[in-house]
Order: sequence, then structure tokens, then C-alpha cells
Amino acid sequence: MSTFGSLYRVTTFGESHCKAVGVIIDGCPPGLPLSEADVQPQLSRRRPGQSALTTPRDEKDKVTILSGTEQGITLGTPIALTVPNEDQRPHDYGEMDFYPRPSHADYTYLEKYGIKAGSGGGRSSARETIGRVAASAVAEKYLKLVHGIEIVAFVASVGNVSMIPFGDPNGGFPDDAAKEAEWMKSWEGWWERLNTVTREQVDSNEVRCPDEKAAQKMRERIIKAKDSNDSIGGTVVCVIRNLPTGLGEPCFDKLEAKLAHAMLSIPATKSFEIGSGLAGTTVPGHIHNDKFVKRENGKLGTVTNFSGGIQGGISNGENVYFKVGFKSVATISQAQPTAQYDGTAGVLAAKGRHDPCVLPRAAPIVESMATLAIMDALMQQNARKATEVLCCNRYSDSSGFVWKEKGEGRLK
Amino acid sequence: MSTFGSLYRVTTFGESHCKAVGVIIDGCPPGLPLSEADVQPQLSRRRPGQSALTTPRDEKDKVTILSGTEQGITLGTPIALTVPNEDQRPHDYGEMDFYPRPSHADYTYLEKYGIKAGSGGGRSSARETIGRVAASAVAEKYLKLVHGIEIVAFVASVGNVSMIPFGDPNGGFPDDAAKEAEWMKSWEGWWERLNTVTREQVDSNEVRCPDEKAAQKMRERIIKAKDSNDSIGGTVVCVIRNLPTGLGEPCFDKLEAKLAHAMLSIPATKSFEIGSGLAGTTVPGHIHNDKFVKRENGKLGTVTNFSGGIQGGISNGENVYFKVGFKSVATISQAQPTAQYDGTAGVLAAKGRHDPCVLPRAAPIVESMATLAIMDALMQQNARKATEVLCCNRYSDSSGFVWKEKGEGRLK
Amino acid sequence: MSTFGSLYRVTTFGESHCKAVGVIIDGCPPGLPLSEADVQPQLSRRRPGQSALTTPRDEKDKVTILSGTEQGITLGTPIALTVPNEDQRPHDYGEMDFYPRPSHADYTYLEKYGIKAGSGGGRSSARETIGRVAASAVAEKYLKLVHGIEIVAFVASVGNVSMIPFGDPNGGFPDDAAKEAEWMKSWEGWWERLNTVTREQVDSNEVRCPDEKAAQKMRERIIKAKDSNDSIGGTVVCVIRNLPTGLGEPCFDKLEAKLAHAMLSIPATKSFEIGSGLAGTTVPGHIHNDKFVKRENGKLGTVTNFSGGIQGGISNGENVYFKVGFKSVATISQAQPTAQYDGTAGVLAAKGRHDPCVLPRAAPIVESMATLAIMDALMQQNARKATEVLCCNRYSDSSGFVWKEKGEGRLK
Amino acid sequence: MSTFGSLYRVTTFGESHCKAVGVIIDGCPPGLPLSEADVQPQLSRRRPGQSALTTPRDEKDKVTILSGTEQGITLGTPIALTVPNEDQRPHDYGEMDFYPRPSHADYTYLEKYGIKAGSGGGRSSARETIGRVAASAVAEKYLKLVHGIEIVAFVASVGNVSMIPFGDPNGGFPDDAAKEAEWMKSWEGWWERLNTVTREQVDSNEVRCPDEKAAQKMRERIIKAKDSNDSIGGTVVCVIRNLPTGLGEPCFDKLEAKLAHAMLSIPATKSFEIGSGLAGTTVPGHIHNDKFVKRENGKLGTVTNFSGGIQGGISNGENVYFKVGFKSVATISQAQPTAQYDGTAGVLAAKGRHDPCVLPRAAPIVESMATLAIMDALMQQNARKATEVLCCNRYSDSSGFVWKEKGEGRLK
Repeated sequence: MSTFGSLYRVTTFGESHCKAVGVIIDGCPPGLPLSEADVQPQLSRRRPGQSALTTPRDEKDKVTILSGTEQGITLGTPIALTVPNEDQRPHDYGEMDFYPRPSHADYTYLEKYGIKAGSGGGRSSARETIGRVAASAVAEKYLKLVHGIEIVAFVASVGNVSMIPFGDPNGGFPDDAAKEAEWMKSWEGWWERLNTVTREQVDSNEVRCPDEKAAQKMRERIIKAKDSNDSIGGTVVCVIRNLPTGLGEPCFDKLEAKLAHAMLSIPATKSFEIGSGLAGTTVPGHIHNDKFVKRENGKLGTVTNFSGGIQGGISNGENVYFKVGFKSVATISQAQPTAQYDGTAGVLAAKGRHDPCVLPRAAPIVESMATLAIMDALMQQNARKATEVLCCNRYSDSSGFVWKEKGEGRLK
Repeated sequence: MSTFGSLYRVTTFGESHCKAVGVIIDGCPPGLPLSEADVQPQLSRRRPGQSALTTPRDEKDKVTILSGTEQGITLGTPIALTVPNEDQRPHDYGEMDFYPRPSHADYTYLEKYGIKAGSGGGRSSARETIGRVAASAVAEKYLKLVHGIEIVAFVASVGNVSMIPFGDPNGGFPDDAAKEAEWMKSWEGWWERLNTVTREQVDSNEVRCPDEKAAQKMRERIIKAKDSNDSIGGTVVCVIRNLPTGLGEPCFDKLEAKLAHAMLSIPATKSFEIGSGLAGTTVPGHIHNDKFVKRENGKLGTVTNFSGGIQGGISNGENVYFKVGFKSVATISQAQPTAQYDGTAGVLAAKGRHDPCVLPRAAPIVESMATLAIMDALMQQNARKATEVLCCNRYSDSSGFVWKEKGEGRLK
Repeated sequence: MSTFGSLYRVTTFGESHCKAVGVIIDGCPPGLPLSEADVQPQLSRRRPGQSALTTPRDEKDKVTILSGTEQGITLGTPIALTVPNEDQRPHDYGEMDFYPRPSHADYTYLEKYGIKAGSGGGRSSARETIGRVAASAVAEKYLKLVHGIEIVAFVASVGNVSMIPFGDPNGGFPDDAAKEAEWMKSWEGWWERLNTVTREQVDSNEVRCPDEKAAQKMRERIIKAKDSNDSIGGTVVCVIRNLPTGLGEPCFDKLEAKLAHAMLSIPATKSFEIGSGLAGTTVPGHIHNDKFVKRENGKLGTVTNFSGGIQGGISNGENVYFKVGFKSVATISQAQPTAQYDGTAGVLAAKGRHDPCVLPRAAPIVESMATLAIMDALMQQNARKATEVLCCNRYSDSSGFVWKEKGEGRLK
Repeated sequence: MSTFGSLYRVTTFGESHCKAVGVIIDGCPPGLPLSEADVQPQLSRRRPGQSALTTPRDEKDKVTILSGTEQGITLGTPIALTVPNEDQRPHDYGEMDFYPRPSHADYTYLEKYGIKAGSGGGRSSARETIGRVAASAVAEKYLKLVHGIEIVAFVASVGNVSMIPFGDPNGGFPDDAAKEAEWMKSWEGWWERLNTVTREQVDSNEVRCPDEKAAQKMRERIIKAKDSNDSIGGTVVCVIRNLPTGLGEPCFDKLEAKLAHAMLSIPATKSFEIGSGLAGTTVPGHIHNDKFVKRENGKLGTVTNFSGGIQGGISNGENVYFKVGFKSVATISQAQPTAQYDGTAGVLAAKGRHDPCVLPRAAPIVESMATLAIMDALMQQNARKATEVLCCNRYSDSSGFVWKEKGEGRLK
């Protein structure tokens, strides 16, 4: 339904043309300094009208905090945030309304509910993501303040143009041994990129791709789609740094399962890959296994990071990274031969202006959903607070149990 | 945690070496004929020791229904199912125990819980999936009996060997116009395959790949991994046929989000792609959009199916299909340079026998999780039972609303 | 947290002095005609300033629907409703602020969150119930329209003044046989009252007690409390009529458990009794058992209704009724010897105006929470839609099973 | 459904005549020493056949831990516990089966599910509570070990025989001022009793009432019911000591709401009262308000405890206590005029042996459900771990905020 998370619980509301869209955050930790100024920047990154590559419609998307804070500090109670829909008139009806738009949600909403919003995308509109972005801005502030966690997403490919160095976006392991070293070096460069990329780099061009060369080609690909009244898709990569170990619940709520759920809930997504992803399915075990090494801080780390920072569904302290695929925008102004609700064949040509490529605006939304998934996993792990008390106080000196020595954590 | 679903709620338990593994199904519809014989076949498909390609360990995995039925009929009350762990002795300890196995869950479980099972994978063992498979066999019987739904999964690639016709597993859209027709024809062949593939075809070879030629090459790839004490990954494709329209909840619980969550909760998964998936991100909108057409039964269908049977998060009546990536098995008997729990560098060489490739056994697990996701979505949609009453009875003759005529579902 | 229900999911927000209070309803059936005019009446019944018996503060509590409807019809998407806090200034601070108010939530909120709203009750304010009442008005319209369900609550006692005919509010079974007949007759009168009482009767006096004589005495008791700067508690009885059979989930989510949860979540509640309640614990089994009888419509009913319409946690088709106790309002203007946050002993005298008795305003809140609990139980039962299909089609002619004959529902 | 709790999640299964009953505990903290010997005692306290006052049927109810521990220590993974049903034969059918038993769940289960267990109570059998008791024994060990929490329940009344000193079980406030002092003294004695009562005292007689005099009269009342083939109800009081402050979630999941939900989910319950309960509704505010006082440990306590240790839904550090009413057992061997499933009037006389009074066995079940509610609330509060970090570290020296001085917790 419209709620995400079990402890940091986010419930959104709003359609494309109702009075307002927004969100309630339930379970936000108390004592966090919070004002609208903390939420606005990320909302502004996702709003339309930012560049020649996005829809020229200009919405302000100004957020208001209705509850849950006093004197700029969170109370621990539900935080309601709203953004008005400035233009809330349902549209004028015409022949276009007899058509369910291809690859939109018009037909399926009608099948599900027996009714659908008469104009715009209704609940399936991308405006629904405003509530998600607002809620995540609050969580992000907490994660940064308390744990130093950083979350950065960027556009990694547009159509067949990719910034990922190991060949095409999904390049498999070279069964040719001669190319293995080069392939491995590409991965190392990639991990280094993930280790250092910043939002400032990402925002330095309108494509939101931190590789300037690739960004330029992507830009051209988008312009080509725009000029032919067409659209194009692509992928976003997201990295989460400084994540504590131990997050994610074994079995059904593995951290990658939660992230996959979060990402595939974003409109227009087609794929989710954790760590090495689809390419990783071609890599032999002796290479794909991330061997351990002692870090300077005394903790274990891994030499490689094909796992994407998660093992057995639980974070291992390395960078978590994943890739999300987005399809080409369904709204295009080319004429499309299709059928009306009643089956009558005809031709539909959407009017109005639209994004030829959703990718630049998708990056902050990917960051938002990642933030919500991480925040909830973190609070779930907190609920086991007493763990150390039990294990350390009671067992470390047990004769049948070598706890704080060699073989730590093993039961004899 | 260990519960999946909100209305068909499945809770599993069990580690690799406890007394038994199993599951409670809460919310199973009453009145369904059910005996152990309904559950055993799918359990047998996932158990080890089936062929030269899987681990030679032979477990019987015989299931017992503890509760929830009487005289072979479900009562609507919780159904508990158990499978004994025949060999439940924790293993003998040796130097190997000082090492967290690379890309296993040893290290992360210890970080999460401050304790870990002393032997085998504990909760992260693939034996945990027994409960899932058992629970899904019950749901599958219901889905077939009441709705005629069919769910079939098969191995689509092993390493770089793929049965997917449009080039490599992830082949993008050819920006070369000359190849467009061929590319489109490949997709049409693929959709036809998905429309007809059966479990019998899948089980006709030990790889569980319905394309005999590809299966042979995959078999060779697996044997190569086995012979070099290595392992290899691959992908499973799953199709769901005869799914009613209207399943899936807009916003966070879109049908594809639920499926992605389900799939990424399976051990060793790396990726999830719905419909055209990652390849779809390269296809321009004017091609990727699935245009509507009137079917013989009077309902709308789509000419193509890049969407994978889901639009706006809701099933549209077409086949739902998706692809899941699995990494190479982490347990290999090659020596691996790595570190012990306390950071000491050393070399780990796993003993014992293992699956060189998890794919053949993964297919029924993918079917299981798909079944659980669909069953829950179906029951959620049922909860809105009164919808038609409200809409049809009250509005069809409303003057301001043309309901059952041209422009159906539109509000004037 | 701040969400109630699993399928008709209500999430409230707001403190006493933030910008607005409100609610999101997720899961509301689509196709329901809905406007603010459907919600306002029940909000007005709960708002302050209605009579000499309640606080003279006059708030308008005007509700706005932000989302989820179009042209006055619900879309199936989340419905957000807000009511502005007209006076949202945090108060001026004085010595009173050093005191946690006795039997208020000041101290416990601070212990829980490490911070508390600086003015008013914050989240513990009765203004929080506005969201509940608004959400229930939508559900109530649905329940009435589709199932003809009626929910009526009224004040049954104030202090020691009670309208319940069998002696004092909690009168036990007379162990004196001579009085048994009279006692039984009282119960029959009571069930008749529950069968016929209407909201119009309830609202005919400012106490909201449908027994005029008792209402007059209750009024006097309230005035006495008011005149002595004191407060007084009492009980509300609620009846639910025309409820379908089969609602309520066995085990933990029995219908009475859900109702108890709902009622004890209302501020200031002290007790919940289903059916015969506390008095029923004194009634011997041979009397307390509700014997069955065939109704005119061919279905079974019960001769008596000590059970309160629920058996084994599931509705049986009879009236569901229960009683809820409310304590005396904690805010009184009498001086109270107590301690400050830091432990310093002192005397606290609350200023300002307050309700001497919360009961008249509590009645619509009790109706609201009953409505939310019933609506959710109804949708949960709907999720098992296919039940009849399975049972009837498959088993009625089974040789080993006499289904539609004598002994219906029994397995041979 | 059959799951209780959100973080300490308990899912039970089993009917009266299936192979086994049991439970899965999900979310149990790791590192807790646990064996069957920790669980058995409480199971034995609730099993039948303990004295002349309970049913003579003797079941062993021997529990087995199937998963979730290794070498006697919890792993943090799901703990499955089972108890076999020794006699699992569905009964022989006879004319009695044509009758839904009055005030049992036979009729409502059939209405709900369209099918019901052919023998015994099926899922509505009290055997279902075995899983609850087993799960709570694990939680209780944790609560005692980590927090020193004690939970004790006892029988407070049987029929009209009560051990509660202030008159009858529900005696109201004396509007006669002369009796006020005596009334107050009774409450003080009651609070003292709650402060000191132990399980040893409770188990010192077969009624499980710690007041020997009252216990003797209760015994007589039960024997009277037994001798007349009748049954009788009563009440159980439960006290929770050493509970940390801050447990319970404002709004819908107040601690008393969670306890009420838990208690009303026990079969045969009729009422729940927190603190002063129903009697408290008659007590004027100036007396009912619990004034604060500084305790020796420097924290605030309350002089009286009418609130029952909870204010605004959150624990305040005082003893939490509540009373639960149970109806007379519905199974009696007196002949009862009633109707068959098809409406035919007739006379039903149950055969076999039964408990004339469920109260003695109910006490440990009440303790169990209290334990489950508290354990879950505790883990929910833990999830806010970072609270103190945020509040204390950041704000204590803020110029606009007097945090650790007079007026603690107040925002200026």
C-alpha cells in the first residue's frame, strides 16, 4: 500500500491533481533539529523544470512541516509534510480520454479499482514521489549526524551510452584469460569511483553523470530522443558509504531485498542489481569471492567488493552499491496506433510537454528510497540493543566458550 | 525478519543443524484439499543430490503437516509444516573455524548478533528455503484450482552461456536500424517461448534449461567449474500465466516491487529484472510502449509485452515474467588467501562436497517465492471485494458519469 | 505507533499546537461518494464548546480533503484529511512549566523521548483524536451503504450515577435465587435498549445519555464537579448492529481484542468490557451460555446475548456491544501538592478552562474507534473471498462428507 | 491472525486434535541461555489435571525446541517450539455433532470459514494457548535477566467471592465522605499486596489466590459449580514490577491498549481494567490524580497509583497492574435447550469431563500475554536507541534551551 518501513514508517498521499501531496513520517527519532530548509534541497533536485533535458513545467514544490517538531526540534511524534499542487484543475476532456495510454497505468488502475482519476496520472503520477523525497531528507539528516552515512546516486547510462568502464553496462566476465587483468582493473577503478563520488560532482552537469565525457554523450542521446518526439531510458547507480555492519534481517528482509523492494517501487524502474549484479553471474567463484583482510581500525574488511557490501543479507561494513534500470518515458508525442478502453482501434498522440528522459531527476529519488530502506534497517537493528550485554557480560569468561580470543564468536 | 506476506503470511524457521526446519502458513483459505503429497514434489525438485551437477549429499526432505487440516482439507487455521534435519550434529571444530568464509554470512551474522551458529551456514543455509518451498506448494495449489494460474521457472544462462535469443543475456537495443527487425523478431520468439514453456520441458534435462542446445553448453560450463574446484553463476527466468488483472498495490507495494523483494531474499541472488529488464533501458519509448489491442474475449491486451505484464505496479492480464541473477556459489574447494576472525592472514580451503552451480536447484525456489508474492497480492485485492457493488450499482446510470459506455471509467 | 488497522489503515498526526492535525486513510474502497460534508458532522459532535458541560473553548475543526477523491468519489488511493490548529502559538512559560502535571503524560513523554512539547498536551492532547474521527466517518459511510451497519454510543454512567438497570454499573449475579428473575428481566430490558437506541436519542440531551432520568442526575453530578474545580469520570456503552457473521480473526486478533485495543487507545480510558463484561464473570455457565434458536430469516440466532455478539473471537450476527470506562479528567484547577521535574516539592494549580467531565464528547470517539476496528475486520474477512467457491463447489457431493444436509459443516 | 508483536513476533499454530501445537518466536535477542527446562515450568502451570478443581484429563505437554539455539544459547534466529497432541484422533461422531455448542465457537467458525474442525474446539481450543505460554517463557527469562522485571498474576475473584478489599470487585468511590478514609486505606493495602505478591504465594493453594481466606471461599464456590454440573467465572489480577519508564507507543499502541489487546485475545475473557479500572471511573479527579514525589534514587515516583503505572500510554516506572475478567466455562454437562445447525430445536448435554472454573489455569496465561506485550514494547523503545545521543550531546548547552537544569525537558 502507501506505507514503507516498519519502524521509520513513511506513508504518502496525493495524486497529480488533488489539493496537495505529502507524507507522514512515524517513528522519527526525537531530538533531531529539523526545519523546512533541511527538506527543500532534495525536493528541488527532483522537481521538474531544472534544465533543457527535463520537462519545462515549473513547479515550486515548497514544503511545509505541519506537525512533529517544536522550535525546530523533532518530538518523536508523527511529522506531516505537505506540498501543494499548484494547478489542481482536472483537465478538459477530449477524445484522448477514450484511450488508456500505452505502458501507463490508466488501464490497470481502472481494472484494479473500477474507477480512475480523470486526468493526469492520478496516483501513478511521479508527483507521488515528493512525499518519499521529503521523508528521506529527514532520515538522511539523522543518518549523517549520528552515523556519518553518505548516500550518493548518479546516472550511469542513457540508452546504450554507459560510463561503466568494463565494456557495456552489463559486460560479463571475459572467458578469455588474457583480458582478465584488464577486466579486474576496470572493477578496481569502479570501486574507487564509488568511494569518492560526491553530490557536487553529480550535479556538475545537467545529466547528473559524474563522468564528464560520458555525460556529454548521454546529453546528446537525450537531445536526439527529444528531437524525435521520442524518449530514452538508462540506469542509475547508488553508493552508500559508512554503513554500520549488521544491518539487514536474514531470510525475507535481507538488506538487498529491502533495497530491491524500495527501488522497484519507483515508477518506471525495470531492474535492480546489487554489487556485481548481472555481470557478477558470469564471474567464477574463485574471483567473485571477496576475501577478508584486516583494516587499520582492527576490523575485517574485504579486498574486493563484488558483494556490494552485503553478505547473507547483512551489511559487512564495505560500501553498499547497486544499479537501478529505468525504462524510456511512456509519454511521447509520436502518434501511436493502439486501442480505446472499449477496444476500438485508433491512434493516440499525446499532447503537451514531457521529459524525454527521466534519469537526471531519478537520481535523487533513488537516493531517497535507499535512505528510507537503510533508516528502517538501522532502527530494526537498534531494537536488539541488549545483545552485547547478554553476550559479552555472560559468556566471555565461560569455560566452554572461547569468546574474546581466537575463534571469536564460535561455540565450543 | 522471517515472515513474508501480509494476508498469506509465511513464517519460516530452522538452521542447517537444528532438529528441524519448517514453516507456518497463516491465512491459507479454508476448504482446500491438502496433503503432504501436494507439497513433496516441489520439495524434491529443490533438494540436493538430484544429479551429477548438484551436491551428492542425499537428503530425503520428507515433509509432515502438523496442523491446519482435517481429513485432508484446510481449516483456515495456521498450517505448520516440518522437515527433519537428518544430520543435526554440529560439526567437529578445526582450524577452518577461525576463518569467516569469503562471501558467506559467517562474518556478518557475528557482527549482527554477537554470536553465530558454530557449524554449517546456520540460518543462512539454503536449508532455510525448504519452508518457503513447502508454503508455496500450498498456495500454488490454490492459485491453480481457483484461478488457473501457472508459474514456470527455468535456467536461462550459466556464466556467459545464454539461451536468450537477442544476443547476450542483456543485449541492448541495436542503434543500427538495419538490425531492428531481427531484434524485434527475437523478442517475439522469446514471448512465444514464455507462453508455452512447461515444467516438464524444464525438467527434461538436469540443467533445467528448456532449450536443449543451450542446456548442453551450460552443462559443459558447470562441469568445467566442477572440475576446477570452482563454481559458476547464472540466471533464472520465471513466467506467470493467467494472472488476473488488478493485482499489486500502487506506490510502495507495486507487484514488481513485491516480486523483487521476494527474489532478492533468496540466498545468492544478485539481480532482478521485470519484463524487458536491463535491456529495456536501452529501448526507445516509441518501441518499448506496449500498444493495446482488443482480445477475442473482449478485453484489452497488449501487442508487445516489454512491460512484463505489469503497468503502474498492477497486473494487466498479460504474462508476468522476470529474470533473477545468481552469483557463483561461495563455497569452493580451491585454496583462498583471506583472514581469520581476529585479522590474522591465512589460507582457507573448504573441504567437503558442494554444488558447483546453484542454478538447477534455484528454479523451483524462484517459482516458490513468485507464488508467495502472487498469493498475497491476490488476497489483498480480494479485500476490496465490495468495489464493484459500489461502482456498478451506484454510478452506471449517473447523469454526470458515463460508466459502461464509451470512455468507461472516466469521470465527467 | 500512529497507525491503526492492516487493510483500512489509518495514520494520524498532530499535536495540540502544531499547524494542523489530520490523518491519512490508506485502503479505502474505491467508488464511494465522499465529501467534507460526510466527515464534518461527527467532528462537530466531538469538538469542544458544545454545552455548559464542556470546555467553553470554541474551535471550528473544519476539515479539508487533500487527496484520494475526484469529483466527490473515492479513487481507492490514500485519502488525506486535515484540520488546522487555529491557535498554534506555544504558550508563555511560567513556573507551572517546572511541574509534570499529575496523571498527565508530561513526565512519561519526557522519559520516553528525552524531549516533550513545551506547551499543551502535545501529542497526548485530545486533539489527536480528530484524525481518528475523520477517518471513521469515511468508513462509517461505507459500512452503512454496503452492509447497513449501525454504530451508536452513549453515556451509561457518570461517577456513581448509572443508567444500567441491573443495579450498579457492575452488579453481579444475585446468588439469591429469589432475585434471579428480576435480574434476568433487567438484562432483557437492556438488550432491548441496545436494539433500539439511536444517535438522535443520544444527542437529545447534553450529557448524551438516552435515559432522560439518569441524564438529569448525571448532569447534576457533572455540575457538582465543575463547581468544586474538580472532575468526574464515567462509562460509555456502544452497540454495533447488523454486523455480518464471520468477522474477527481467531487467536490474537479476536474481534473483542481488536475492539479492546481500539478503546484503550483513547485517552483517559480505564476499562473495556465485552457483552456481559465484568458482571458476566459472576454468572453461572448454565445461564451465561447463549442458546441458539432459528431466526425468521432461516439463520441461527441466540436467545440471550451475554456474549455481546462475539463467540470464539468471531461475530455471530447478534448485536455487538461493549462498555468503556473513562477516568476523571486529570486537569483540575484545585491546587495539588506534587513535585517538579527535578523533584522539588511544591503545589500546582492549573489555570484556564477545562472539561469537568469528558464523557459527552467521548461517545463519538468511541463510535469512531469501533468503526475503524470493524472496517478493518470486514476487509480482512473479504480477503478470503474464494472460500465459498472452494467449499461449496468441491465438497457438497463428496461421499465422505455431509455438507449441505443435517450436520452441515461437519467432516465425517 | 496468529501472530502477536512486531519485533518480538510470536506465531502460534495448532488445533485440539492435530499432530502438534506450537509456536515460532521471531526476533528473540541472541546470546540468551535457553533450554527446554526454561519453558517447561510455565507450561506445566497451565496444563490440565493439576488438582480437583481442574479437568482430570492429564496431558504431559512436553516441549521441544526445534531451532534457534545452539549449545543452549539463542542465535537470534527464529525459535520453533512444539508440544505433541498425544491424543489426536478426531472423535466419533454422534447426534451431539448436529449442535453448535452454546457460547462456543462452533457456529462462528463455520460462518467464518465455511468449514470447521470436526472434533473438539479445533483452533478455538485452549490448547492454542500452549504456544503463547512457551513463547513467553523465553521472553520472561530475558526480561528478568536484563531488566529484573517480575510479572505475577493471581485469581482475585470467583463468582461473587472477591479478595479485593474495597468492597465488591468493582466497588465505586463512596460519595459518603465518612467512608473516604477507609476506602483510601483499602487501596493502600491493595497496592502493598501488589508490591509483594509472589508466584510461590500464588501457587500455595489450588485456586491460585494469595489470600488464604478468600481462596477457601473461592474453592467452595468452584466445588458448588462442579457438583451442580455447572461452571463459574471470575477475575485474574496481574502486576508487572521493575518496568523501565518510557515503554508504550503514544496514540494507537499505548501500553494499556497493547495489554488490553493481549488479554482479550485469551479465550473466555470478558473485561480488562488498567489500574483503578472500572472503579476508577467513579473517583473524582482531585483524588484520582497521582501526585509526584521524589524517590530515593532521585527519580520521580507517584504517591498513589490509580493510573496503574501508565500515563499517556507510556510506563512511568510504578507497578503496572490490571484485572482481567473470565466468563464461566461454556462446556457444562447440564442439558441445554438450543438449536441444531439447521435450526431444529433440541436439547444438548455435553458429555465428558471439563473444568468447572478456568481461573486457576488462567493465571499463567495472563502472565504469558503480559510478558509478550511488554517484551515487544521494550524492543520498540530500544529501536530509538540514539535518542539520548541526539538530545544530550547536542542540546544541553544550547543557549535557548534549559535542558539539564530546572525545567528539564522544556523548550524555551
